[in-house]
Amino acid sequence: MKTLVVISHPEIAESGSQQYLLSSVPEKEAVTVHHLESIYPSGQIDIEAEQRLLMEHDRILFQFPFYWYSSPALLKKWQDDVLTDGFAYGAQGSRLAGKEFGLILTIGVKATAYQAGGKEGFSISELTKPYQAIAMKTKMTYLQPLVIPQFAYMQEKQKMQLLIAYQQMLTREREDSLASREKWLIHELEKTDPATLASGDEQVIQQAIERIEENRETIDELDAILEQVRQS
Amino acid sequence: MKTLVVISHPEIAESGSQQYLLSSVPEKEAVTVHHLESIYPSGQIDIEAEQRLLMEHDRILFQFPFYWYSSPALLKKWQDDVLTDGFAYGAQGSRLAGKEFGLILTIGVKATAYQAGGKEGFSISELTKPYQAIAMKTKMTYLQPLVIPQFAYMQEKQKMQLLIAYQQMLTREREDSLASREKWLIHELEKTDPATLASGDEQVIQQAIERIEENRETIDELDAILEQVRQS
Repeated sequence: MKTLVVISHPEIAESGSQQYLLSSVPEKEAVTVHHLESIYPSGQIDIEAEQRLLMEHDRILFQFPFYWYSSPALLKKWQDDVLTDGFAYGAQGSRLAGKEFGLILTIGVKATAYQAGGKEGFSISELTKPYQAIAMKTKMTYLQPLVIPQFAYMQEKQKMQLLIAYQQMLTREREDSLASREKWLIHELEKTDPATLASGDEQVIQQAIERIEENRETIDELDAILEQVRQS
Repeated sequence: MKTLVVISHPEIAESGSQQYLLSSVPEKEAVTVHHLESIYPSGQIDIEAEQRLLMEHDRILFQFPFYWYSSPALLKKWQDDVLTDGFAYGAQGSRLAGKEFGLILTIGVKATAYQAGGKEGFSISELTKPYQAIAMKTKMTYLQPLVIPQFAYMQEKQKMQLLIAYQQMLTREREDSLASREKWLIHELEKTDPATLASGDEQVIQQAIERIEENRETIDELDAILEQVRQS
């Protein structure tokens, strides 16, 4: 599976969360990172090149800070320019049909602010309806989004969890079982080359391995107990 | 009441619906029309000027073609640049609090396409949640939107109705009674100077006057009948 991450952020160098995510992109996987403001500083988009890029990937992800309940302007321009009638939808069918489409959103407030009665008043599911409608119109499968609240306040443990969730969003095939998630995780962790890691990240990965091994031991113990219960 | 119409359309000169709406703006009312792509062709927005403009008006309307279930990119940039923390929301309160906020949307398909099971799959109310959230965050009152489907296919009668609905969106105070709507309409029609009208529009206005007079006669007759029924 090949994944395209279309990032829109006007000041990506100053964004701690975006830099953390960039440093978390798995290098040995088929992931293309595509930061629009770097590639098109003038705002003029190469439509054919973008359409080719989309065709070459199976999973399309939009990654952006949730500005006024939507993306930064350049990603909107990209949508309007690139997702044309005859390519993304229309009588000739969608060239994107069957691909997967998802959002990776950074938000500045707690996740609980996004609900009726909360500070933002509406849920992320409500506010992202336009993207769900894009998926429907282009016949792509809409993925569960990855919402990243208040990165600046995250503890190391939360960042570790985010690293894993992000890598899963980018590379894990859609399967639901715990076993498949473990399989993915062990595969990823075994590939890790400590020499390529930023300072501190090696420790994070070591913690992740220990956590998953502990979990597996716990699950195996519970399985054994359950088996005894069944037999008694 | 002063109304600001913030229009975003990358090719407004080629848009029949936008040109019709521009020609329908009531000249003798306190309406400011503000087409972003004309004012900021480079995309660089004068934030202070825009914030002053907002402060000077009581009703803020966004008028745009519904591209990918949202606005063209320049209006999104305007939102992100102009609606700043400390001006539009935040600890110091919103300078926009108490104003009215609404959308005027042109759409390329039938209105019925926007529903579950329809071609677009989601309702306009669902897809415009981000704008409803903006109203909530800035403490503005969200108005019922004016949705204009398939202008190119409209008959003269429908265009007449659109003209009236548009002028009401721009200048009618929020009141619900039929009498207040009639009052508004008669006020508007009486002000009309035929010399300033584009060819054909005079006829449209004449038709509108006749229609409202007929309606009033019908209502008066029904009122009389009802009165007789009550007394018998």
